[in-house]
Amino acid sequence: MAALRSSAIRDLLAVTARPDVIGLAGGLPDPDLVPLDRIRAATVRALESADSLQYTETAGLLALREVIARRESALRPRPVTTAEVAVTHGSQQALSLLAQVLVDPGATVVVEEPAYPGALQVLRATQARIMTVPLDADGMRTDRIADLLAAGERPVLVHTVSTFHNPRGVTMSASRRRELTTLAERFGFLVVEDDPYGELHYAGPPPEPIAAHSDRVIRLSSVSKTLAPALRVGWMVAPREICAAVELAKQGADLCDSRLAQETVTELLADEQWMTGHLQDLRAEYGRRADALRRAVEREFGDCATLSRIGGGMFGWLEFQDGTDTDALLSAALDHSVAFVPGSAFAVDGQDRAGARLCFTTNTPARLDDAVGRLAAAHSR
Amino acid sequence: MAALRSSAIRDLLAVTARPDVIGLAGGLPDPDLVPLDRIRAATVRALESADSLQYTETAGLLALREVIARRESALRPRPVTTAEVAVTHGSQQALSLLAQVLVDPGATVVVEEPAYPGALQVLRATQARIMTVPLDADGMRTDRIADLLAAGERPVLVHTVSTFHNPRGVTMSASRRRELTTLAERFGFLVVEDDPYGELHYAGPPPEPIAAHSDRVIRLSSVSKTLAPALRVGWMVAPREICAAVELAKQGADLCDSRLAQETVTELLADEQWMTGHLQDLRAEYGRRADALRRAVEREFGDCATLSRIGGGMFGWLEFQDGTDTDALLSAALDHSVAFVPGSAFAVDGQDRAGARLCFTTNTPARLDDAVGRLAAAHSR
Repeated sequence: MAALRSSAIRDLLAVTARPDVIGLAGGLPDPDLVPLDRIRAATVRALESADSLQYTETAGLLALREVIARRESALRPRPVTTAEVAVTHGSQQALSLLAQVLVDPGATVVVEEPAYPGALQVLRATQARIMTVPLDADGMRTDRIADLLAAGERPVLVHTVSTFHNPRGVTMSASRRRELTTLAERFGFLVVEDDPYGELHYAGPPPEPIAAHSDRVIRLSSVSKTLAPALRVGWMVAPREICAAVELAKQGADLCDSRLAQETVTELLADEQWMTGHLQDLRAEYGRRADALRRAVEREFGDCATLSRIGGGMFGWLEFQDGTDTDALLSAALDHSVAFVPGSAFAVDGQDRAGARLCFTTNTPARLDDAVGRLAAAHSR
Repeated sequence: MAALRSSAIRDLLAVTARPDVIGLAGGLPDPDLVPLDRIRAATVRALESADSLQYTETAGLLALREVIARRESALRPRPVTTAEVAVTHGSQQALSLLAQVLVDPGATVVVEEPAYPGALQVLRATQARIMTVPLDADGMRTDRIADLLAAGERPVLVHTVSTFHNPRGVTMSASRRRELTTLAERFGFLVVEDDPYGELHYAGPPPEPIAAHSDRVIRLSSVSKTLAPALRVGWMVAPREICAAVELAKQGADLCDSRLAQETVTELLADEQWMTGHLQDLRAEYGRRADALRRAVEREFGDCATLSRIGGGMFGWLEFQDGTDTDALLSAALDHSVAFVPGSAFAVDGQDRAGARLCFTTNTPARLDDAVGRLAAAHSR
């Protein structure tokens, strides 16, 4: 199922490669906002020595783990050590290795409904028993997790895209973050805080990470959304025994990552002044695009559909109130040369027919305006 | 066990990072022979556009699969199509995904004794039932596979490092390659032909790949030994359904590889004239080093130990005839500032105490001479 769904998304992405189609379907950074010159300069510097082309440590270059530890320490009360950082081939690999290391067949895991398909795919591959908890405007419904625990469920882990959710766009509130870790400590489960979008905030920073409240939280992030996907540098901050187990699993999975890419990323993340400016630029431009999407949706759809509040990230969630089936809408939309991902692609147990994920990062405000116009034309057909 | 053993090798590699230690333990290309300028030029060219920094196809860039298909087609009677090529994050990832896709818990798999630890690790992780077959000077003993089959064993796959074996250095003969595929077709198992070293031949090319004889062969290779490990570009040539299953598993494992690295490798592999010259240079220099190792071993050890014939690859296998325990020898060797990997690190069922893997690629002839002198001093202690 997960496999089918995620390949449905890939088929969709193939259609949206048509140059006439305005893509709201992807979840990509805009190539025009990727810091190409800076990445090229750092790459050329790393390539001054052939050492950058050799095999490297499975856990990641120490200098990179140091800079990640420093950045992550700034987000929480207790400093993070390098033994608590494992660098992975994008944060998807961290998810996949964690599932391999922590989840036995039949073990219970809790995910959000709707869920990030990449998490669902790796958890299903372990033959875990997957339970879902809904989201609202304050993120994952921790009261529902409490209900499951009260009913005797004993999950080994809870997965959440805590900040600027994929696909729903919402952010877990500070009080729910505390509640979740209180439950994790009382019932002994782990929380996987999957946070690739947290630095892309357009209306003030999100609450402290869930990981700031407990050591039972494994925090994942990456540079795919802030620097470039092709660097394939993600990481995990976790208790050192979990890092060690993931490192061993990674040895079997692919031996190690690219030392060249890790040296490049080390230079960029360590240049705090540049990185701060770069993030500010991204926030300003993506924030303008999020606003453009909102204005266009309000103009075109009025009361037919509502768009989630966009505090950051890459997605707005459009929810139809008029009985529109977004699977059907997608066919019509492709006829009007605009693409999005229907809610059904993210459904776990349920059958979402009213929701649509709209990515606003890869188009200018003018193109977004045009795209929503096309979507409205498809909708009124 | 595999985990312990492979981490033993890693601990060993940590010791050998001491600058005074001459390392015969690794399995690395010499950084001085990595085509740094050519890789830098191709990388800078790819970085002319930010498209090289975006996400890419899970199966690998089509242009790269085309050049791999072309190169692989030259090695076998039937041309390879791009649907039969999957690019992976080094060929270790191909092994790992294949184990995930093809091997159920309790399934029987056959490996060589001694074995490449990376293969053993991923097969053990699937909880396969692992059977071993010994090697001799003509490679894997296919008669022993026939014995297992005659006794009613029904393996799902047979893994072999067919050419310039790691660790034993030997190459499977042409007649055994044919025998193995005859058995594979009669009994319905798959052969994984793990061939990262085949292009590094120093005494004429090896026999046709096993894959030339049957479609039941999955062939793995990579540029880690010929261009550079940090490019992390490996591949698998296999029936298209297996490529499709591996692609789906890779989506969960890490979404995709680096488009930048794939563009770089595409340029280098497609430049056949340059690539031919580069391989000739590697063969000439590594061949000189293999000769230097042989001469030094003959001079220092005489009849105490024999070195495998080195036709290519990175390793010579030193076998002691005088009762030397190579685990014990390693401690003494480190005292004399020389490192190697003892046979026990590659043992599956058995307990090899007489063998030692010597890597000759990362040292000049003069240093190899010195290294073997130190090893002899440690041995005579």
